[in-house]
Amino acid sequence: MPDLHGYYIEDLSQGMSAAFGRTVSDADIALFAGVSGDTNPLHLNQEFASTTIFKGRIAHGLLAAAYISTVIGTKLPGPGAIYISQSLNFKAPVRAGDTVLATVTIAEIMAAKKRVRLDCMCTVGEKVVLDGEALIMVSSRSD
Amino acid sequence: MPDLHGYYIEDLSQGMSAAFGRTVSDADIALFAGVSGDTNPLHLNQEFASTTIFKGRIAHGLLAAAYISTVIGTKLPGPGAIYISQSLNFKAPVRAGDTVLATVTIAEIMAAKKRVRLDCMCTVGEKVVLDGEALIMVSSRSD
Amino acid sequence: MPDLHGYYIEDLSQGMSAAFGRTVSDADIALFAGVSGDTNPLHLNQEFASTTIFKGRIAHGLLAAAYISTVIGTKLPGPGAIYISQSLNFKAPVRAGDTVLATVTIAEIMAAKKRVRLDCMCTVGEKVVLDGEALIMVSSRSD
Amino acid sequence: MPDLHGYYIEDLSQGMSAAFGRTVSDADIALFAGVSGDTNPLHLNQEFASTTIFKGRIAHGLLAAAYISTVIGTKLPGPGAIYISQSLNFKAPVRAGDTVLATVTIAEIMAAKKRVRLDCMCTVGEKVVLDGEALIMVSSRSD
Repeated sequence: MPDLHGYYIEDLSQGMSAAFGRTVSDADIALFAGVSGDTNPLHLNQEFASTTIFKGRIAHGLLAAAYISTVIGTKLPGPGAIYISQSLNFKAPVRAGDTVLATVTIAEIMAAKKRVRLDCMCTVGEKVVLDGEALIMVSSRSD
Repeated sequence: MPDLHGYYIEDLSQGMSAAFGRTVSDADIALFAGVSGDTNPLHLNQEFASTTIFKGRIAHGLLAAAYISTVIGTKLPGPGAIYISQSLNFKAPVRAGDTVLATVTIAEIMAAKKRVRLDCMCTVGEKVVLDGEALIMVSSRSD
Repeated sequence: MPDLHGYYIEDLSQGMSAAFGRTVSDADIALFAGVSGDTNPLHLNQEFASTTIFKGRIAHGLLAAAYISTVIGTKLPGPGAIYISQSLNFKAPVRAGDTVLATVTIAEIMAAKKRVRLDCMCTVGEKVVLDGEALIMVSSRSD
Repeated sequence: MPDLHGYYIEDLSQGMSAAFGRTVSDADIALFAGVSGDTNPLHLNQEFASTTIFKGRIAHGLLAAAYISTVIGTKLPGPGAIYISQSLNFKAPVRAGDTVLATVTIAEIMAAKKRVRLDCMCTVGEKVVLDGEALIMVSSRSD
């Protein structure tokens, strides 16, 4: 088997960054409703949603959050990393048609504990729609 | 239009609780990979996953997290609530076949700010697999 | 396990009503085609559909019908209810962009047989697009 | 454009029959939950479902019903037909892994009104899981 493992802790340094971007479609919202069970009319019902402060349907907040885990699980640190915790601050709505860019940056490396702290952010254009912090355990080449 | 709105802040009291339970299937993991883009082999590749400390494929952590948002968005407080923040502590893996129960309990009501703090927990049987806290804005009947 | 069960027959009374509303998107039509196998060009092919009396693509009739079962299965009577029969009269087409409101109202309670008869209706704005009747078996708290 | 139209009423005769068969997967159930919004735990939660008379998760009743509309909309009478009504009697549960065969047979032709009445049936092996009747408007070659 080729090595599918991502970065080891020795490979990482503060400030390293990776990103994943995706345009949210109506199909993504319908699929996320199905896989999560979250059928909140704010996501699925234009008439209801237009009566809220969002003035229309928005994507599930955890859909954008999932893009952060996509970066962590596939790019930085990538496969082999273990998710310990994630904080999420929802700053602005994401709508169908928006292209969300999830960016993850290494904020701190705790080598003795084999942990890294990541600054996480989702943007649509210039606007930050979601930010937060992840704590990840990363294995060592000497494990 | 019938009232699709969930609870207003006047309707809520500390200790109120609601839950959503779902059996995680392989299809859910495949669909979550598709909708998120998180194709980490830990979730999709049994050969790779069996070499990790999990000894096999596990579900995306944010899939269980999404069940928490399902409770918040559809039951407590339900439609109309606005997600401000969510913290997530991943405690144990969830595997295909596990039935995850997401439970949300009102921990604190900040009436002046129209916010509620929720204790959030996902369990598989007796085991806590995920916990955290949500901060939600809930509108008032007098708005 | 918290009680995920919906209403018991003792909880129900004639005239009780519940609703689910959803905006039909192109994605919903594509997903319904995929999951059902109903690839009728009336739903998927704008050129063909524009030659019909509908003058354009319409949603699958059973998609709106499914919203009725959503109300029955998740709200009234909710989880635990058993579907016995459903009649459906298709009154008008539903198109992508329409917000369909499915409303279910208890028309009759047959307590001895533990059955309820429900009047079912889907509307788009003021227009009835689908109506029919459901027969449901609902368990008793004394079962 | 090639002629995508199905049968005209002159082409039909009593007893003509067509079928569509499909194996229900967990993915189909998850997708149907998403597209319908029906997240009833009877379909998604093995622990809840095992406490019901079904002793485990079952597919949405309207998923099997949708296979009937697939036959009507794609085969008999096929594209161009207009759905007037459908009755559905749910006889037995369908589970993931079951192969459902939906069969539609012409029971009556009302040529003057350009309508046909169809007997509809879904089976899993020898067992009838769903039956009912459809009323369809079919255009004439002389229209």
